[in-house]
Amino acid sequence: MIKIVVAGFKGKMGMTATKMVRDHEGFELVGVLDPHAKETNLNELAEFSTVDVPIFNDKETVVKTVKTDVWIDFTIPSVAYENTRFALEQGIRPVVGTTGFSETEVNELVNLSQKQALGGLIAPNFAIGAVLMMQFSAKAAKYFPDVEIIEMHHDNKLDAPSGTAIKTAEMIYAERGEHQQGHPDEKESIPGARGADYHGMKIHSVRLPGLVAHQQVQFGSTGEGLTIRHDSYDRASFMTGVALGCEKVMDLKELVYGLENLL
Amino acid sequence: MIKIVVAGFKGKMGMTATKMVRDHEGFELVGVLDPHAKETNLNELAEFSTVDVPIFNDKETVVKTVKTDVWIDFTIPSVAYENTRFALEQGIRPVVGTTGFSETEVNELVNLSQKQALGGLIAPNFAIGAVLMMQFSAKAAKYFPDVEIIEMHHDNKLDAPSGTAIKTAEMIYAERGEHQQGHPDEKESIPGARGADYHGMKIHSVRLPGLVAHQQVQFGSTGEGLTIRHDSYDRASFMTGVALGCEKVMDLKELVYGLENLL
Amino acid sequence: MIKIVVAGFKGKMGMTATKMVRDHEGFELVGVLDPHAKETNLNELAEFSTVDVPIFNDKETVVKTVKTDVWIDFTIPSVAYENTRFALEQGIRPVVGTTGFSETEVNELVNLSQKQALGGLIAPNFAIGAVLMMQFSAKAAKYFPDVEIIEMHHDNKLDAPSGTAIKTAEMIYAERGEHQQGHPDEKESIPGARGADYHGMKIHSVRLPGLVAHQQVQFGSTGEGLTIRHDSYDRASFMTGVALGCEKVMDLKELVYGLENLL
Amino acid sequence: MIKIVVAGFKGKMGMTATKMVRDHEGFELVGVLDPHAKETNLNELAEFSTVDVPIFNDKETVVKTVKTDVWIDFTIPSVAYENTRFALEQGIRPVVGTTGFSETEVNELVNLSQKQALGGLIAPNFAIGAVLMMQFSAKAAKYFPDVEIIEMHHDNKLDAPSGTAIKTAEMIYAERGEHQQGHPDEKESIPGARGADYHGMKIHSVRLPGLVAHQQVQFGSTGEGLTIRHDSYDRASFMTGVALGCEKVMDLKELVYGLENLL
Repeated sequence: MIKIVVAGFKGKMGMTATKMVRDHEGFELVGVLDPHAKETNLNELAEFSTVDVPIFNDKETVVKTVKTDVWIDFTIPSVAYENTRFALEQGIRPVVGTTGFSETEVNELVNLSQKQALGGLIAPNFAIGAVLMMQFSAKAAKYFPDVEIIEMHHDNKLDAPSGTAIKTAEMIYAERGEHQQGHPDEKESIPGARGADYHGMKIHSVRLPGLVAHQQVQFGSTGEGLTIRHDSYDRASFMTGVALGCEKVMDLKELVYGLENLL
Repeated sequence: MIKIVVAGFKGKMGMTATKMVRDHEGFELVGVLDPHAKETNLNELAEFSTVDVPIFNDKETVVKTVKTDVWIDFTIPSVAYENTRFALEQGIRPVVGTTGFSETEVNELVNLSQKQALGGLIAPNFAIGAVLMMQFSAKAAKYFPDVEIIEMHHDNKLDAPSGTAIKTAEMIYAERGEHQQGHPDEKESIPGARGADYHGMKIHSVRLPGLVAHQQVQFGSTGEGLTIRHDSYDRASFMTGVALGCEKVMDLKELVYGLENLL
Repeated sequence: MIKIVVAGFKGKMGMTATKMVRDHEGFELVGVLDPHAKETNLNELAEFSTVDVPIFNDKETVVKTVKTDVWIDFTIPSVAYENTRFALEQGIRPVVGTTGFSETEVNELVNLSQKQALGGLIAPNFAIGAVLMMQFSAKAAKYFPDVEIIEMHHDNKLDAPSGTAIKTAEMIYAERGEHQQGHPDEKESIPGARGADYHGMKIHSVRLPGLVAHQQVQFGSTGEGLTIRHDSYDRASFMTGVALGCEKVMDLKELVYGLENLL
Repeated sequence: MIKIVVAGFKGKMGMTATKMVRDHEGFELVGVLDPHAKETNLNELAEFSTVDVPIFNDKETVVKTVKTDVWIDFTIPSVAYENTRFALEQGIRPVVGTTGFSETEVNELVNLSQKQALGGLIAPNFAIGAVLMMQFSAKAAKYFPDVEIIEMHHDNKLDAPSGTAIKTAEMIYAERGEHQQGHPDEKESIPGARGADYHGMKIHSVRLPGLVAHQQVQFGSTGEGLTIRHDSYDRASFMTGVALGCEKVMDLKELVYGLENLL
């Protein structure tokens, strides 16, 4: 049984992680942390009424009170760096989903983890399916340089292309480099038809009510096509990746950045 | 048995039509026409060695020599109008796939057909599947105004969006009118990501080697999605529509424009 | 403003309908009904704290207290028939999503509505997208008799094929009749590969975690394919159809069975 | 420039390979072989009228007359083994697409190649896209054990499931082992709905006119889905793999079986 603490348990992701740890048969939830929580035990909350687990308000009390192997962190950027450093110093393996770490911060934390010979994971994206989609796309691009990305999201999303689409394009670019696609003389009779151009590959952003988060990476070659698609229907999908992270960090000897390095 | 002549039989479409008529059990091929043909019978051509059908060089000889019910025309724009008028005058029902008729020409031909009480069909697109896709899309747009079109073609296509995508968008627009889609504050970090804008709906053009001609019309509404997709793999697909046209014109009393009016 | 009462408002569907009516700008929620409700006004419930609408325990009190145009019913089979009859007798147009009506009951209610010259709707399925998918499929089958249905659901669904798949197959069968598909000599090396057979057409049931409710109707013909797909992500999708029903019954002069008759 | 001979050049695959070698800028076509050919040079054939390359009737004459690096073989099973052995003995790297080698034969050829320290490739399937689909599927199955395969082919295919589907299932099984899918109590109201069962995973075979050869491997997990799809439109797709094989064997020191070992 891996003993786990969840920091930031009152946020949406933290709450989902708390439930995942409670339900996972290989994990033991030994505590949860939130500086503003007024309750002192999870069983004071309606949805955890039978779960006898202490709620802490500060990290120092956590380590004084319970023994823990893994520190799951879904707090906020301004707190996550301190938490991660603290966990490593205390010999606890961090599994961090909070985003916003600078490169310098990540490097410091990796160095610290190496000194401690302690595993850890910081992952901006815990969706295993999305990470596999990106890895497979990068590999396929070695053989099929012609590729377009179609990403589809609900219509209250503000940015286009999505972060995942851009990350995928970067990984494909790293494999195949610059490559002119389409006919050199192609013309758009309505601007934007051919999508966003990223080093020659095209990205198309679909926004419709009803959609959740979907991406299709489509490769074409003489007489054939290869398509890799990821559909995300629910935030709960991230938890498969968080659980995998908690298991893998037990065997690692340093902190790694990105779930892809564990797959 | 419907007796049929094929004009323009040496072109790609005409040749495919000739084979279709020969193979269709309800049709009898009574002649083919090409002003430059040197052969006088189809059996002089390798692929028709057992087909005893006369080849004509001019339309007047056709009507003097054989009795025919339907005139299939896959000639060139400069010839097709004359041919269609001639067929109607001779009491023969035209089924015309040549494009480029002006609105005035179409109106004249419709008037002539009404005087003769004779059926006929001019269709810029004979792919039944494509026509159904457009009809279904127009109907769905009544209930689902949020829609995006993704059309996918081989990468030697020059124009984007495709003609079929624009036609589809026009038919949707006729049903639902102007409609702002996506979030009012959405932003493209790379221009073109959100595609071509046609009265609020978005069109995305994918171009990849290996693809043939495909289109996906995607509707979204609260909690659900409806997608209508057409895949065209081969020019032979048009012949299902040509055959349908030959059958339907026998019962019509005037010439109609567009296969959609027969479905 | 159409005045609406919701019967069975404490069930999942009834609650979703109540919210829809409250949020819809063309509708006015004049009352809700549940025999076991202890509250007397919606504003006693947390999620409706600002909504001043009376809660009733019996249908007689509803009609004595408020004037209403439409009666939405998401109760239980044993109650729905009585409710629907009562609504019609009171000059209120019923929009009923409860299932389990016998054919005799439906006929009686239709007769009663005709005497009253009053519109009404009983619909086992309010998902407009699903109904359009079925209608389009039936129409396409006239021209493309070769069709297979792939339906995909979460893996805790017990029955295969789904009810929607069977309904779709029935509607296709009504159009095209019996039709042998596939090669006459095809062989399954593992039984079940070719799916369930319904009068020659094949149905394939996919069951996977993560999926919600999806169906793809795939037609094939020489050189082309036509695919119609419906994705249902959320129960809320039904409400587009309920809202449409409430609007349409205002103009009808009799009760109709099935949302498809309003599209 | 890699010098290449094509054996079996008069068959469909051999002819396609001959054209590929002629058109590929890194390859030089030094000869073609067919025991029954009456021509002595490719330029006697209409489609190669400008290609001055000798046609040979027996393998001994090939090696006496031209120097060659790679021997492409698309002959027939009874000849291919002898040809491959002969090529290796002569210091020529074989790239063989003929199927039907026994395990013993493959082992002998591998041993011979190792003695000669010579690269070579025997591949039953040269479609890179199909091989990538299988590799990606096997990898994804480590994290997503719930998977169904939907393969779609034209309706004159006799066997179901397809060979590629079974190969894919075997590769997935090697990674994830036996795994019960779907609800334990699920019931088929029409037999076959849930498809063919292979160690718990389900395979569905769609057969429709118009389709060519397509396969979709669909994974599901809590809240997400991952789909890998390959579309094969044309035999020419194999040539990307043959070309890759010709390049890779130049660096290998032994014969390998299966294109997947080069990717």
